[in-house]
Amino acid sequence: MSQKPIPDIVIGRLPVYLRALQHMALEGRLVTSSQELGERLGISAAQIRKDLSQFGEFGKQGTGYNIEFLANQLQEILHVDRVWEVAIVGAGDIGSALARYNGFNERGFQIKLIFDSSPAKINSKINDFVIKDSQNIVQEIKGTRIQIAMLAVPAAYAQAVANDLVEAGVKAILNYAPVNLNVPSGVRVQYIDPAIHLQRMTYYLP
Amino acid sequence: MSQKPIPDIVIGRLPVYLRALQHMALEGRLVTSSQELGERLGISAAQIRKDLSQFGEFGKQGTGYNIEFLANQLQEILHVDRVWEVAIVGAGDIGSALARYNGFNERGFQIKLIFDSSPAKINSKINDFVIKDSQNIVQEIKGTRIQIAMLAVPAAYAQAVANDLVEAGVKAILNYAPVNLNVPSGVRVQYIDPAIHLQRMTYYLP
Repeated sequence: MSQKPIPDIVIGRLPVYLRALQHMALEGRLVTSSQELGERLGISAAQIRKDLSQFGEFGKQGTGYNIEFLANQLQEILHVDRVWEVAIVGAGDIGSALARYNGFNERGFQIKLIFDSSPAKINSKINDFVIKDSQNIVQEIKGTRIQIAMLAVPAAYAQAVANDLVEAGVKAILNYAPVNLNVPSGVRVQYIDPAIHLQRMTYYLP
Repeated sequence: MSQKPIPDIVIGRLPVYLRALQHMALEGRLVTSSQELGERLGISAAQIRKDLSQFGEFGKQGTGYNIEFLANQLQEILHVDRVWEVAIVGAGDIGSALARYNGFNERGFQIKLIFDSSPAKINSKINDFVIKDSQNIVQEIKGTRIQIAMLAVPAAYAQAVANDLVEAGVKAILNYAPVNLNVPSGVRVQYIDPAIHLQRMTYYLP
């Protein structure tokens, strides 16, 4: 395995490969090829082979990839061969949807805490989660195994919440607030903002 | 302006620049620099200058960018100097959250139709929208100005709905279902799947 860092854009494709492989496994499939994966994903077979080759030798020329083996390897590479505990901040529409979504567990994530600042929501329940006061983010998270948070608060509060999450030891934030976050190096942020994704497509529309 | 196509990864950064500029404008700011933008966004100033230079000359050396002018130019480049009509398919947690979200209008998008397949939801309302039967996607959308859809249905139904959307003339799909879509060339898809974004970060966590 090479020692130089692998480009983040390659890392970003691995979860997409993993998801496709897991779908194939659910369909009862045992073996696939870079060609087939490529057609499913709209990515060239050569790109897929090149991406995977950065991490080792996963298939034999002519016989393709063993789906279960490759999925297991990708889970290991992405560190989702374990379960990560996750906090959600914001119990509005998006935060509630995330708390109720049952697709996280099988993909390496377990929601453990959910916070909101509204007195009407604090101590009420979403599924089995009692919503906690977001004033207590630092105390509640510190000392737990939680290193990941999903942030679904209004844009105006996002940076202050992010600061609390960082203080609590969170190292990865999935930010649904439509605003950029400043975090120390060593903390990663990914952004989900539907308008950003839509604008990336309207560029191509006449 | 150059005639060769601009890489999609550059296009993908323009909405992020636009969002930051619009925040600055809301703060009452008039002028910014690639340095300041870069610090806000965690992108190098050189990268920002290089990206913007592909579309023209937007700032003067030493005086920086006029925020309103640059924001207007980016809106024009991204084709969000107009309002795009959008359909939502799926009135579950995510679809409802999207229908209620009031941040779209100012960024170039207006929700016009929302569909669901559940008899319990059809003809009920989310805000002012009467939920329509997703069996009628093609008839309802065809002949309207809608070219963009957000897809928030369970993974098992996503491809069939995408086929209907394409038949109805939709050219851009924002897909929240955790599955890859096959669409004809000329139709663009962007994906939002929180587990994919989380897995991209766990790679870097010890």
